[in-house]
Amino acid sequence: MRKFMKEAINEAKKAYEMGEVPVGAVVAKEGQIIAMAHNMVEAKKDATAHAEILAIQKAAEEIGDWRLDKCEIYVTLEPCIMCTGAIFNSRIKRLTYGAKESSEMGLEIIRWELKKSNKSGIEIYEGIMENECKKLLEDFFKEKRDK
Amino acid sequence: MRKFMKEAINEAKKAYEMGEVPVGAVVAKEGQIIAMAHNMVEAKKDATAHAEILAIQKAAEEIGDWRLDKCEIYVTLEPCIMCTGAIFNSRIKRLTYGAKESSEMGLEIIRWELKKSNKSGIEIYEGIMENECKKLLEDFFKEKRDK
Repeated sequence: MRKFMKEAINEAKKAYEMGEVPVGAVVAKEGQIIAMAHNMVEAKKDATAHAEILAIQKAAEEIGDWRLDKCEIYVTLEPCIMCTGAIFNSRIKRLTYGAKESSEMGLEIIRWELKKSNKSGIEIYEGIMENECKKLLEDFFKEKRDK
Repeated sequence: MRKFMKEAINEAKKAYEMGEVPVGAVVAKEGQIIAMAHNMVEAKKDATAHAEILAIQKAAEEIGDWRLDKCEIYVTLEPCIMCTGAIFNSRIKRLTYGAKESSEMGLEIIRWELKKSNKSGIEIYEGIMENECKKLLEDFFKEKRDK
């Protein structure tokens, strides 16, 4: 798990360098990385250009199918509602993320709903390399505030 | 409202012709349509290629900003979790949709959460030209079953 999360953190660092909120994502299939991406909302001027969406799009292009049911995704930050939905839609089987999203618009309510409806068999792991993932975000927002 | 929903329905019909689940979306700004799109998941082999996501991307490209806070979106079907999140992320001020999504993974839980947190000022209207929107979907799935 750490191997893939390290690559996601590297992606997040690229976003940081570009002045984007530092979030990175990696999609792996059968132990191999097939797609990596980082947040590009500002560069692409596109609110949907989160790391997860871009990584899912690249992974689908790589395997030639929108169904990513043999894939797992690693993200440095708890996915937002849009990205959580995209992960479900793409049928990814396992989600692993680092830092928890503190806002109320995070994954909690969706996960609760999922458990209740028992419609998705997705496995979710949180807190993997949490400190490293969180520090990048904290440094980024501190720098923004201090400017 | 009906004028824009009619265009969204036309988009949904294009999806139908392509063998895609018939959903269409229109983004309007100050009374003018700035983007139209339909579902293209199969054609693009991309689980994120829902009508709303594509319309939001086109609208952002059109105005050169990811912030669509002067825009509203019309969709023939209640947006899924991914698209609801994308609508929030893009700061669209008003969502109008036709047919209601019957699955438990629809907008209900998110809307409830939103009301609770009172974080988003988005206005939501449902059931506009519902029968036309719904009939397209029913015809599509009936045809699929009968094949």
